[in-house]
Amino acid sequence: MVNQKIQDRLAALRAVMKKNGVDWYMVPTADFHNSEYVDAYFKVREYLCNFSGSNGTLIVGMDEAGLWTDGRYFIQAERELTGTGVTLYRMLEDNVPTKEEFLQQKMENGQTLGFDGRVVDTRFGLKLEKDLADKQIKIVYGKDLADEVWTDRPALPCHPVLVPDEALFGQNVSEKLAAVRKDMAAHGASGLFLSKLDDLMWLLNIRGADVECNPVALSYAYLTQDECHFFLQDGEVTDVLKAHAAKYHITLHPYEEAAEWMESCAITGSVMCDEGNVSYAFYKILENRAEVVDAANPTELLKAVKNETELANMQEVYLKDSAAVCKFIYWVKKNVGKIPMTEYSAAMYLDHLRSEIDGYLDLSFPTISAYGTNAAMMHYEATEDNCAALAPEGMLLVDSGGQYLGGTTDVTRTIVLGPVSQTIKEHYTAVAKGMLQLTDAKFLYGCTGRNLDILARQPMWDQNIDYKCGTGHGVGYILNVHEGPQGIRWRFTGNQKEVPIEAGMDVTNEPGIYIEGSHGIRIENVMVARNGVKNGDGQFMYFDTLTWAPIDLDAIDVSVMERKDIERLNRYHAQVREKMTPYLNEEEAAWLKEATRAI
Amino acid sequence: MVNQKIQDRLAALRAVMKKNGVDWYMVPTADFHNSEYVDAYFKVREYLCNFSGSNGTLIVGMDEAGLWTDGRYFIQAERELTGTGVTLYRMLEDNVPTKEEFLQQKMENGQTLGFDGRVVDTRFGLKLEKDLADKQIKIVYGKDLADEVWTDRPALPCHPVLVPDEALFGQNVSEKLAAVRKDMAAHGASGLFLSKLDDLMWLLNIRGADVECNPVALSYAYLTQDECHFFLQDGEVTDVLKAHAAKYHITLHPYEEAAEWMESCAITGSVMCDEGNVSYAFYKILENRAEVVDAANPTELLKAVKNETELANMQEVYLKDSAAVCKFIYWVKKNVGKIPMTEYSAAMYLDHLRSEIDGYLDLSFPTISAYGTNAAMMHYEATEDNCAALAPEGMLLVDSGGQYLGGTTDVTRTIVLGPVSQTIKEHYTAVAKGMLQLTDAKFLYGCTGRNLDILARQPMWDQNIDYKCGTGHGVGYILNVHEGPQGIRWRFTGNQKEVPIEAGMDVTNEPGIYIEGSHGIRIENVMVARNGVKNGDGQFMYFDTLTWAPIDLDAIDVSVMERKDIERLNRYHAQVREKMTPYLNEEEAAWLKEATRAI
Repeated sequence: MVNQKIQDRLAALRAVMKKNGVDWYMVPTADFHNSEYVDAYFKVREYLCNFSGSNGTLIVGMDEAGLWTDGRYFIQAERELTGTGVTLYRMLEDNVPTKEEFLQQKMENGQTLGFDGRVVDTRFGLKLEKDLADKQIKIVYGKDLADEVWTDRPALPCHPVLVPDEALFGQNVSEKLAAVRKDMAAHGASGLFLSKLDDLMWLLNIRGADVECNPVALSYAYLTQDECHFFLQDGEVTDVLKAHAAKYHITLHPYEEAAEWMESCAITGSVMCDEGNVSYAFYKILENRAEVVDAANPTELLKAVKNETELANMQEVYLKDSAAVCKFIYWVKKNVGKIPMTEYSAAMYLDHLRSEIDGYLDLSFPTISAYGTNAAMMHYEATEDNCAALAPEGMLLVDSGGQYLGGTTDVTRTIVLGPVSQTIKEHYTAVAKGMLQLTDAKFLYGCTGRNLDILARQPMWDQNIDYKCGTGHGVGYILNVHEGPQGIRWRFTGNQKEVPIEAGMDVTNEPGIYIEGSHGIRIENVMVARNGVKNGDGQFMYFDTLTWAPIDLDAIDVSVMERKDIERLNRYHAQVREKMTPYLNEEEAAWLKEATRAI
Repeated sequence: MVNQKIQDRLAALRAVMKKNGVDWYMVPTADFHNSEYVDAYFKVREYLCNFSGSNGTLIVGMDEAGLWTDGRYFIQAERELTGTGVTLYRMLEDNVPTKEEFLQQKMENGQTLGFDGRVVDTRFGLKLEKDLADKQIKIVYGKDLADEVWTDRPALPCHPVLVPDEALFGQNVSEKLAAVRKDMAAHGASGLFLSKLDDLMWLLNIRGADVECNPVALSYAYLTQDECHFFLQDGEVTDVLKAHAAKYHITLHPYEEAAEWMESCAITGSVMCDEGNVSYAFYKILENRAEVVDAANPTELLKAVKNETELANMQEVYLKDSAAVCKFIYWVKKNVGKIPMTEYSAAMYLDHLRSEIDGYLDLSFPTISAYGTNAAMMHYEATEDNCAALAPEGMLLVDSGGQYLGGTTDVTRTIVLGPVSQTIKEHYTAVAKGMLQLTDAKFLYGCTGRNLDILARQPMWDQNIDYKCGTGHGVGYILNVHEGPQGIRWRFTGNQKEVPIEAGMDVTNEPGIYIEGSHGIRIENVMVARNGVKNGDGQFMYFDTLTWAPIDLDAIDVSVMERKDIERLNRYHAQVREKMTPYLNEEEAAWLKEATRAI
């Protein structure tokens, strides 16, 4: 089946490419800030190839096109690319070329590669420069070719910025600026260019609404030891923000003028930026003006380690958010097969429960509600028009979270709706065992997610099964649901950073099993790393759990559990019961008591 | 108590330093080849400070001296340094400066640092250059100052080289040279300078006897695509070696002339060497002559992955070696308290059993036989004059191995001689659980020892206890008992390389618990990585065990074991019984049956 709409768009792009002397054109999934989720304005890659996943890069030549995405999206991409003529390249699989290798192979000597330099990060841009140098490839990055093709493109998002009570953050802007400036000095840099949106929001204790589910505002900042210049669209600036900026000696500039301003401002000494995040286009400006010091944004690690105010607020928020999940699970299990229910309507029900919680701002990502075989797609998204009806059999995987004034949540439960096979029970139990084993980890300070990942993955690997993604990611505080640099994964690729887990870092714990065409299981809690015993052997650490929702005993096969697995599950369920009961009505509480019974 | 002998030697060294204009002098533990174990000739550091461990660096200033060593040796070093005036610096502990940091702090502007450039590896030499540049420190590396002090220094070792039947190696020298040259070409290097002794022996299918327990000969090689120059002391060259060299077009040169030859030979293009291994003195020669390509010796990875001939021979050898260990355990347990027995005499008994095995060449390291509190010192060595008597109580830790024509072994068992405390039983069981959990690991190709380490360490970390060393190291084939690049450890420091575990790599599995002043427990098997199932999720791998000796059930507390732990132990013991019984007499077999009973 041909997808004529997409083929026409690709043909139009190729015509523009030809006009501009571009032989190959690359379209990553990014806004100007290397954000993971992007507003509709930036969804060029989806517009051109129909693949809607959150990660993917399209490369278009005159005779062929390819789409690179990661294991979370292989199944979905295959489906969405059908009939587009675009080939799927499964990243990290054997014999699959990387984007650079593909371009090295396919491009002829002296050809031209084009991309919008504002949506390609510096590290990748520089790598392309280097990898393609042998073939004298010319790189043009000053123009967004898709803009000519995409005639009904949405406008750049623009929403007034929110300036919450600073008590919410546990640290005021002066303290944060001082910490950042200390790190700049340690790097010998006199300037710092920041373009990562959640880092900017964290630093200035503000929030925005320019990206769905991410409370961030399109912005840039340039800091010196004395000055802080902040670039924001006029439509985002409120009087409250002006006062806030004045209080902290922040100079406001129009967002659109950031490039021009950076090209002409006074710069003495070197400028620090994170080449993994700053766009290639901005890097080229900075590189022209000063020595560039490539280093992680000082904000990154500071933001990742939550302070006690943030942690206390998060605990509170996670109790309420978990209660919504408990109520939802009860409602689904009770009503499935009795009232009409689809993946989408179930998600709407849960979203509604969340929206009634104090301090609710938004979802932290679009709720994933995936029934039966759909759950094998890690990031499946049901829509009102395209979703499965739920029946009292099999399982519903729901991965969801909210943004609240007090924290950002992320939780997955796979809910048993009716009879499931013995294989599914064994898989479900393996996932639960892995999640609980990682929860129970004790480790020495200095460990990174690479040391710990196998604790979650072991029950799956023991069955020759892998989930093709990391086990866990950091979670923002009223910020992006995916936050770095911490992560639990067995290998780090690309720009993923490997850092020791620090006390106060939060991280998800979400092993899973995904069997294409059959079922998908994921169980996800959020945890906070804490310091435990310190002795002659070092500083021991452990995790506190933030998420409290039952793991479905209907799919637990106690015969494949060790005594310790059973103790861990019972201990967790006892806490769920204790913490959640106060939030539930009588009927729900009675159900929870049974759902969290000791096994 | 003052150690006058050592203080006199340090005073003599300081006099020589003064005469040579050297303010600080550094003495690492190394021969000219960065070998881990060194011949008596090279034991300068021990001569100067009395610390006899296998790893340690002495730094001597005019008014103070320091010794840096790792966690294995803290207890031993503290004891041996008593009265010497030398301060112990515990590497990797909090607030302990590294050697570089120490020198940066202590050295004054414009002072001179001295060391013998032949016994310092390039990477460390270059790091010192860089770290001390700010203070305009002068580095002199052309002279071995200790030589003047050490008047009764032993001669450089020199023993005829052994040229075994090449069938033993599964690959002839031509094949090995071809593989190495392929890697040189891939690195764009026209020359390769090799100084690592086990790499040289592996490449040329020869063995030596210049280092106790390491079947290596002091030598260097310089390879091009067409030539192979091999530098060896005249006293080591036999007619058989001459014929072997002629067969493979290897040109022999005197060992003493290697530096001079490298200074004047024809070199076109770049020269490859491993800066982590090649001495700073040789690097300075190479650097003067050509562009240096820093890369791992091509021999390193080739040598680490054992071929099927080697693996088959190793399996055979490990059966016989394990049988000696079984006989030894039986003998110790039966006779302790009945006949006079010391740590030393027990070790001699075991060494004798090994010496009677077909193809025995040597021990693979001096047998560690450590009773009671002595076992808390990871690398304790009892001597005839200084050893504890064994009694029917507590435990004897024996870490030992042999060199055979067919493989190198390494095994540790902690043997219960009589009543032990409940704490010891819990510790012993934790160590056994960790060892068996790692044995049972299933993992995806791409994992390194960093991913797997926690499987062995988890039972200890769960009790806030750590063993301050890696969990496992590669083992040579009729070569050094410690071999890289593979290793199982949770963090990699210094020159330790982190590489994926490849099928055919062997590695030890030796978790432990060491409680100073109380007890030490280590259980060690050698394993070989193998490919398991390959499916859409990747290439799964697992370990085969090579070592077969009972884990002492007298210290196992079944109440702290999970069902899976019990299954693993019983499964291993059933295999020990099956494989070892044919090697034992009736009495021994009856004991083994009981010692490996299912619990």
